[in-house]
Amino acid sequence: MQTPELRSLLEQVQTGQMAIDVALARLAPAAELGFAHVDLHRRQRCGFPEVIFCEGKTCEWVGSVVAQLAAAGQDCLATRVSADQAEYLSEHFPAAQQDRLARTFWLPAGSARVAGGRVTVITAGTSDLPVAQEAVVTARALGSEVNLLADVGVAGIHRSVVGGLVDCPVVAVPTSVGYGAAFQGVAPLLTMLNSCSANVVVVNIDSGFKGGYVAALIARRRSQTS
Amino acid sequence: MQTPELRSLLEQVQTGQMAIDVALARLAPAAELGFAHVDLHRRQRCGFPEVIFCEGKTCEWVGSVVAQLAAAGQDCLATRVSADQAEYLSEHFPAAQQDRLARTFWLPAGSARVAGGRVTVITAGTSDLPVAQEAVVTARALGSEVNLLADVGVAGIHRSVVGGLVDCPVVAVPTSVGYGAAFQGVAPLLTMLNSCSANVVVVNIDSGFKGGYVAALIARRRSQTS
Amino acid sequence: MQTPELRSLLEQVQTGQMAIDVALARLAPAAELGFAHVDLHRRQRCGFPEVIFCEGKTCEWVGSVVAQLAAAGQDCLATRVSADQAEYLSEHFPAAQQDRLARTFWLPAGSARVAGGRVTVITAGTSDLPVAQEAVVTARALGSEVNLLADVGVAGIHRSVVGGLVDCPVVAVPTSVGYGAAFQGVAPLLTMLNSCSANVVVVNIDSGFKGGYVAALIARRRSQTS
Amino acid sequence: MQTPELRSLLEQVQTGQMAIDVALARLAPAAELGFAHVDLHRRQRCGFPEVIFCEGKTCEWVGSVVAQLAAAGQDCLATRVSADQAEYLSEHFPAAQQDRLARTFWLPAGSARVAGGRVTVITAGTSDLPVAQEAVVTARALGSEVNLLADVGVAGIHRSVVGGLVDCPVVAVPTSVGYGAAFQGVAPLLTMLNSCSANVVVVNIDSGFKGGYVAALIARRRSQTS
Amino acid sequence: MQTPELRSLLEQVQTGQMAIDVALARLAPAAELGFAHVDLHRRQRCGFPEVIFCEGKTCEWVGSVVAQLAAAGQDCLATRVSADQAEYLSEHFPAAQQDRLARTFWLPAGSARVAGGRVTVITAGTSDLPVAQEAVVTARALGSEVNLLADVGVAGIHRSVVGGLVDCPVVAVPTSVGYGAAFQGVAPLLTMLNSCSANVVVVNIDSGFKGGYVAALIARRRSQTS
Amino acid sequence: MQTPELRSLLEQVQTGQMAIDVALARLAPAAELGFAHVDLHRRQRCGFPEVIFCEGKTCEWVGSVVAQLAAAGQDCLATRVSADQAEYLSEHFPAAQQDRLARTFWLPAGSARVAGGRVTVITAGTSDLPVAQEAVVTARALGSEVNLLADVGVAGIHRSVVGGLVDCPVVAVPTSVGYGAAFQGVAPLLTMLNSCSANVVVVNIDSGFKGGYVAALIARRRSQTS
Amino acid sequence: MQTPELRSLLEQVQTGQMAIDVALARLAPAAELGFAHVDLHRRQRCGFPEVIFCEGKTCEWVGSVVAQLAAAGQDCLATRVSADQAEYLSEHFPAAQQDRLARTFWLPAGSARVAGGRVTVITAGTSDLPVAQEAVVTARALGSEVNLLADVGVAGIHRSVVGGLVDCPVVAVPTSVGYGAAFQGVAPLLTMLNSCSANVVVVNIDSGFKGGYVAALIARRRSQTS
Amino acid sequence: MQTPELRSLLEQVQTGQMAIDVALARLAPAAELGFAHVDLHRRQRCGFPEVIFCEGKTCEWVGSVVAQLAAAGQDCLATRVSADQAEYLSEHFPAAQQDRLARTFWLPAGSARVAGGRVTVITAGTSDLPVAQEAVVTARALGSEVNLLADVGVAGIHRSVVGGLVDCPVVAVPTSVGYGAAFQGVAPLLTMLNSCSANVVVVNIDSGFKGGYVAALIARRRSQTS
Repeated sequence: MQTPELRSLLEQVQTGQMAIDVALARLAPAAELGFAHVDLHRRQRCGFPEVIFCEGKTCEWVGSVVAQLAAAGQDCLATRVSADQAEYLSEHFPAAQQDRLARTFWLPAGSARVAGGRVTVITAGTSDLPVAQEAVVTARALGSEVNLLADVGVAGIHRSVVGGLVDCPVVAVPTSVGYGAAFQGVAPLLTMLNSCSANVVVVNIDSGFKGGYVAALIARRRSQTS
Repeated sequence: MQTPELRSLLEQVQTGQMAIDVALARLAPAAELGFAHVDLHRRQRCGFPEVIFCEGKTCEWVGSVVAQLAAAGQDCLATRVSADQAEYLSEHFPAAQQDRLARTFWLPAGSARVAGGRVTVITAGTSDLPVAQEAVVTARALGSEVNLLADVGVAGIHRSVVGGLVDCPVVAVPTSVGYGAAFQGVAPLLTMLNSCSANVVVVNIDSGFKGGYVAALIARRRSQTS
Repeated sequence: MQTPELRSLLEQVQTGQMAIDVALARLAPAAELGFAHVDLHRRQRCGFPEVIFCEGKTCEWVGSVVAQLAAAGQDCLATRVSADQAEYLSEHFPAAQQDRLARTFWLPAGSARVAGGRVTVITAGTSDLPVAQEAVVTARALGSEVNLLADVGVAGIHRSVVGGLVDCPVVAVPTSVGYGAAFQGVAPLLTMLNSCSANVVVVNIDSGFKGGYVAALIARRRSQTS
Repeated sequence: MQTPELRSLLEQVQTGQMAIDVALARLAPAAELGFAHVDLHRRQRCGFPEVIFCEGKTCEWVGSVVAQLAAAGQDCLATRVSADQAEYLSEHFPAAQQDRLARTFWLPAGSARVAGGRVTVITAGTSDLPVAQEAVVTARALGSEVNLLADVGVAGIHRSVVGGLVDCPVVAVPTSVGYGAAFQGVAPLLTMLNSCSANVVVVNIDSGFKGGYVAALIARRRSQTS
Repeated sequence: MQTPELRSLLEQVQTGQMAIDVALARLAPAAELGFAHVDLHRRQRCGFPEVIFCEGKTCEWVGSVVAQLAAAGQDCLATRVSADQAEYLSEHFPAAQQDRLARTFWLPAGSARVAGGRVTVITAGTSDLPVAQEAVVTARALGSEVNLLADVGVAGIHRSVVGGLVDCPVVAVPTSVGYGAAFQGVAPLLTMLNSCSANVVVVNIDSGFKGGYVAALIARRRSQTS
Repeated sequence: MQTPELRSLLEQVQTGQMAIDVALARLAPAAELGFAHVDLHRRQRCGFPEVIFCEGKTCEWVGSVVAQLAAAGQDCLATRVSADQAEYLSEHFPAAQQDRLARTFWLPAGSARVAGGRVTVITAGTSDLPVAQEAVVTARALGSEVNLLADVGVAGIHRSVVGGLVDCPVVAVPTSVGYGAAFQGVAPLLTMLNSCSANVVVVNIDSGFKGGYVAALIARRRSQTS
Repeated sequence: MQTPELRSLLEQVQTGQMAIDVALARLAPAAELGFAHVDLHRRQRCGFPEVIFCEGKTCEWVGSVVAQLAAAGQDCLATRVSADQAEYLSEHFPAAQQDRLARTFWLPAGSARVAGGRVTVITAGTSDLPVAQEAVVTARALGSEVNLLADVGVAGIHRSVVGGLVDCPVVAVPTSVGYGAAFQGVAPLLTMLNSCSANVVVVNIDSGFKGGYVAALIARRRSQTS
Repeated sequence: MQTPELRSLLEQVQTGQMAIDVALARLAPAAELGFAHVDLHRRQRCGFPEVIFCEGKTCEWVGSVVAQLAAAGQDCLATRVSADQAEYLSEHFPAAQQDRLARTFWLPAGSARVAGGRVTVITAGTSDLPVAQEAVVTARALGSEVNLLADVGVAGIHRSVVGGLVDCPVVAVPTSVGYGAAFQGVAPLLTMLNSCSANVVVVNIDSGFKGGYVAALIARRRSQTS
């Protein structure tokens, strides 16, 4: 927690605007939930709070971590939210923004977002939209202004071509949609790793989240320094 | 053997211009060499004689098959010729054309080649030249007029892009040169199989031979019918 | 759009037979739908309009692209149509031809099809029929006369054998049906890539569409030039 | 050791024709060499003595095992013999038969071989000859009459075809020669595992030895029972 | 069809016991069903009629092929029968024997089975029983006397061990049951291919059918010659 | 069975406290159930009775093996219990402890558990809990005192790190949860196999059972000797 | 070429300091060498001239491209320089800097390098040094100030750990050194792709070049904007 | 460094028996060599000093690390020593023990080794000896009494069998020797991961070092506590 935030918190305690328990939750280094250990210092160390990957977790587990982060006054982003989890979360956190295409849940801490640079998300085809939208939501959560260009792949003029035409880093996200020999994303992953454009880096298959995260990080660096 | 060729052969026998043994060799359906069975009817069945793949064969084996095809009055193309084999063959068949870049040996049967359509061979980079040259030599052996465009890959605007810009079939040949995750050609093979251009077909890794062969076959069909 | 078609369109506008909006839709280079970018010049560039791959798309997305292509007076072919999508499309485009075995949707632009050569589709077994039928529908959509020979694999005399007996290019389509070590089509894919018949080229696993497309393209070249 | 052999051995000891030490070596159940444990009862249990796989072994190791088997009056077959090992062995065991193409060493125990059925070894191409020859030598060592048909693959009419035309078991041996996507024998291995002929079984890549061994075993069963 | 069977058929026609149409169906070399080509000479060529692999086929397709084989007086074995197909087939062919564990359908041609040798089917664990039972049914269909030993794997003393203890060929069938790194049968497949017992051959993953088929073929050879 | 247990059993028979049949079941070396062969000497040979892997087995099969082990007076642990199997087992063995997260069934033989050393189970994230819990239940069944630390992976400081900080053996269990390029557990499996900490050993993907088993075995050795 | 450079060039032509031919070479958009097509506009389009990947090229090919870039007044970086190529290049371009550990060749265009941000290159072990050094040379060529920390991996506290402790993007470069199951770099590649630190992106195996390039690009963005 | 060792060192300094520089080297937490960072506290943290993996390192690099560890009074074990490195090391450290079969270098710190339990190393065949010997040397370096049983694999009764017959943990080391489908050790790696014996854990391919290390660690625990 940065000093101004900390001062504000203490003043609220002093004036009775904030209960001791609420202040304690916000100051704790980590919360132990038994099935999960919520790292509340991650924001300070890495610049963004822990993000919840929802696959293989019960609705209750996810809900408890969200509640913990919210109680600590931190932004809360969750990805790979299933239909069941989405319903559960919308009941318990009606103020959050959910995106069914991206399968994301986004509950900002309340403070206004400061624009941190600009990111462009590009998809070759329409089938890649859910992954692209996960990247869009994530980059926006990190404060980027995001522009989405969908389905720009004109019959084969695509992916690696972008790398050869621009002078900024390109974060490539392979997706798992395609015919048999795409092998659930292995083929585009290899294509991207072997791109002969030197400015192309790669993240995991279908990881719109990581693609959006790193793009926002790079964009933010620029804007922070300007 | 087509009728005109056959008639010519018989006339040469009749007039004593050709020995009986030579005529016999030309007429035989196949030659049995013990270690190899040379299919002499392949030209009639498939439009081109058997092609010799030299890897894993002794100089003597390769030489014997070349001699057999030549004796039968057929074109003789050999691929993947090693340095040792090349030296051996140039001693025994000084009239043949050898290409050290393509690692090919070419001993035409003598009759003039009839141009059978046009083929363009394109490489993204310079490292692909040996494979490309194998395709060039092969397509020329099948009678195509061949044009080679080397190293046209302008920093990533390459391979699959060609497919989206033309209206003819594209025969893609993956090559085994590249960084680790190219996996000796598996990555470009998958890229090509997954090309979203519907006119792209694929052959084996480094198989310039097969790429040139099929391209010439397609080109020839056009010219034959015109 | 070719000149005669263009002249006809302008005359219809002149005489009031066609509304300005309809004419506009037909002349637009591309249609932007937000989630998709419909490339309306693809027909001119590649000889056939964009084909819709339906997997991972909503019924509404697919329907909008079909409507767009139809409005532009272009042929509309869709592949991998799910049961839900098929029902939705048959409601909105009752004139279209759907094939449940091939999982295709075909809405021709209305102009009579000109036969463009002949294509033979061969399957080794009955389980390959859906993929084969996708090839049949596609090749017919491109104007080929198609002949289907199903289940000709007499206990093992199959696939690569065809390549060794004919003098035309063979486009091989591996399918994903089979026992464990077929690895969802990887085994037949490798078999075909390694065929020792020089006239065999390969497309993606289960891609009946691409197989039919390229075969029709090769066949058309022949007929166009005759 | 069968009773007649045993009786003969004891009689030789009784008459002083055989030294006690020689007799002991022949009767021992196993020989312990420190780096190797030579199983001398394998012949009785499995019908053929242990076979020496020479890769990764020193000349001395191989030589010691050969000497041990010979001393025990057993047949001695070694495979994958390197050039160095071959030279070493021919010096120490001049009576043995070595085959440089098959890379085998064969030192029969002296008793006449009884023909045990008939085996046919077939290769599609000339490059497969070393593996085929290993199968030939092995099957002969087990007492089969062997017939070798080399290079019968007429442009693609090959491998799995054989399975569909005969009524006997076919033991398929994939080889590691070929273009890139043959993946050192993985492609033919998968082709054979997926053969739709029900009578085809498969052994390891390049394992001419195992192919010849099992074929001889099957052939022998027939002849033993007749 | 063998001469005695043929004579009997003709006599039945002569005496009016068999209608001309029934006789015609039995004598036809093959039946063309549109979606399938039923090879009726396979029995003569390979010693057993075509076997129906049911995956990816409709109930009607499977039923038609069964009817065709039955009409031709041939044994009819089907494997990988789904619950739906099983129900359909039991309605139309109530006389057939179905095995739900093995997922097989067996409709013998009526003539008494002659015992053709003995086969032992062994499983390491209980989870392999469905595959083992497919082998049992198949080998019995080919006339073998079959003995099933289930779950003999005493904590690791298994698979390849059998090979080292017997002097007959062992046909190994890998199964797809197991923990993650079994990779749906790839791990046991490789284990078996790499068995150091020379008498072990391998068939496809989960292919109880092929395992039983080849084992019966080997066993039959023995008994035929005795 | 150890001597004291044996004496106690015989005394109960002598005094009529135990029926002959019950005693017989406890003394039998193995129980043959047709579909399964229950190895009742495994406890003596390996220190723990056979454990039942439930995947691919019917409720009745699992129930019969449990009954057999219980009748023989042995501990009974089952893993990978499905919802259906769990319900069936809880009806027939109401005294057993079932863990739905770990999917385990545990029916101790009744004798008090002697603590056999201490084991710590650590998970990087919450999604790994089911596998971790399987390890916990297994290690407890073998008599270890178990401590579970869940979700200790602070944003990347995880897995292999543990190996470098402790001086005891680390048994690593890869899990199958994760993004595309985790390949169902292959990526963490390789990470662990390649750990540069010399004290890390690996078991199969998702095999919490084996991880807990070996950890308990190592821990027990220590405590047994103290 | 930027306007100031262009003006300087023209002034040199005007004053006779530069020959017309030299000026022509510098102004050409691309140079065609037959075997290679040198893209001279890449610097303008992407911010850095084409980089020469030397594997699979002859000394003469590499030398010609270097000469061409130098003639055009551009920086020249070559990677994967073999010992032979290094010797050839040092003879023809004695002013260039070669690094035998990194296998790089670096011939700057002469203008002073402007520091463009700071990059830290970290290796877990000593065996990774050649790849790390390639990254160092590349990033320096792009104008970064580079700091190398070698062998910081304290027994397992490595790779992905870095990601969790910093708030800047981490570009991970897997290397091909290691034991068998590292599979020539596949294992660390997967580890990095699956890193749970959201700020980690990945490039090809052993591609120190691309790692250094992108890191410099990100660093430069920061400094350019400050 | 333990207190007694520390006291002894200080006394030697006090009495002038040890120079200040030598004492400093022994007390340093780590040594920075530029290309390597030698972790001198590893012994305390993990129970054994850092071990040098020699592949991809120059003779000088390896020599410097050895010298550093020796100067710090620690045991020094190096693995994968090449012939060149071996020669270099024997010149500079003539007191060290080198094993050419195991490719190891062993320079104990001088203090007598205390036996820490017993380890048995078993190989199925002779080809596995180099890996087994690496395990033997490593386990001895950690203080175990080691027994080597070579080539105990009686025709297939091997590997996983051991697991089912003993009640102690089994550390399995796959090796890369074998026929094609062994895939350089992948096949035995999978076999071992899938062993149905619950007491088998696995390390990397050919990693005799890690196998010996962990086995010694487990054995030592036992002996430490007795």
